[in-house]
Amino acid sequence: MAKIDFKEKLTSENDILAAELRKQFGEDDLFALNLVSSPGSGKTSLLERTLSELGSQLEMGLIAGDVQTENDADRLIRAGGKMVRPIVTNGACHLDAKMITRVLSSFKLRALDVLFIENVGNLVCPSSFDLGEDMKVVLISTTEGDDKPLKYPAMFRRSSLMIINKIDLLGHSDFDLERVKKHARQINGEIEIIELSCRTKEGLDDWFSWLKENVRHKQSMPA
Amino acid sequence: MAKIDFKEKLTSENDILAAELRKQFGEDDLFALNLVSSPGSGKTSLLERTLSELGSQLEMGLIAGDVQTENDADRLIRAGGKMVRPIVTNGACHLDAKMITRVLSSFKLRALDVLFIENVGNLVCPSSFDLGEDMKVVLISTTEGDDKPLKYPAMFRRSSLMIINKIDLLGHSDFDLERVKKHARQINGEIEIIELSCRTKEGLDDWFSWLKENVRHKQSMPA
Repeated sequence: MAKIDFKEKLTSENDILAAELRKQFGEDDLFALNLVSSPGSGKTSLLERTLSELGSQLEMGLIAGDVQTENDADRLIRAGGKMVRPIVTNGACHLDAKMITRVLSSFKLRALDVLFIENVGNLVCPSSFDLGEDMKVVLISTTEGDDKPLKYPAMFRRSSLMIINKIDLLGHSDFDLERVKKHARQINGEIEIIELSCRTKEGLDDWFSWLKENVRHKQSMPA
Repeated sequence: MAKIDFKEKLTSENDILAAELRKQFGEDDLFALNLVSSPGSGKTSLLERTLSELGSQLEMGLIAGDVQTENDADRLIRAGGKMVRPIVTNGACHLDAKMITRVLSSFKLRALDVLFIENVGNLVCPSSFDLGEDMKVVLISTTEGDDKPLKYPAMFRRSSLMIINKIDLLGHSDFDLERVKKHARQINGEIEIIELSCRTKEGLDDWFSWLKENVRHKQSMPA
């Protein structure tokens, strides 16, 4: 699934739909993020924290993709999400632009500052499917291996920001913070990096600042 | 990728090759395991421990699949693996029977008791590709969410054993051991469960016993 010929990709239905989505997000001054990671790295926890801390400052729309269950969407609604839509892929290993287009008709995009798209937990396949997002954000947690950027390079190459979650658990494994940062920069010299813990809240302010700064930047751009 | 029509699957090239592999493993009295999990759940760590503790009792062959890098194969060789082969999928999100067939020609299968196939870290796509194994073993770690069996049901339905790794980190998150076991049994009433920590070695003996018992059972079966 992740092996797609470049020419084929350019002309694929997904890319045409993704381009339309990107145009729409631009017209609506909407900052759209595609959150990708392994299962269990903390995408939903990060969004829960973001909703409860920034809910009064930013209007957020959330799409929660999962192979099965609407558990993540339910968690986001409980955390205060007012515009949350689940996408259950029924076995498919990634979200695609068509799924986003379909669910987006129920959003009032004009009213939103940010759209979070929480992809299926999978470090491989989602890297090949453009969803029209402004940026991909890849999460990695300190309980995974610190060689993940080298082992899943496409995902780290295509991400603008790497969030290292669960820094409260540093020391409980051989995970080396400097090594993972070195590996990520080796794959992608431009990648930004934020370290945090959704559990203890350490570092969350860096993420909130990054997010607000990028929303401001998007809204200041000519459509 | 994970959505495959049943008829199509039955007749697919992969299933034909997998059936040939299964026949070969039977003729050679070889117990073959397909290890699947998210990235970072500890497949390689478990195999390292198994090599160092059981290396004198069982002849083990190991195939280490990764999207990129031969890091895992290198780790297994350092842990004492004498017959280790990497498969770098170059972007593909799972191993398939053709990749296994290709690499297997360099193994002396008759001399082996066990063949471990460490799949690409991915809880979705590998569930659809039979590698001729006797059993799939799914790993989950206590730093992931305890709703993984519900969110990735195909993988847990098709696995004979669920290993819950990193039990030394219980209490550092909201992971509930009883809940994950209940969820796994909800999806698959037959699944066996072993709890362990590759780091502290707690529970590893249960895994070693399970493994040796299954090797004995396989070797006692008529070819």
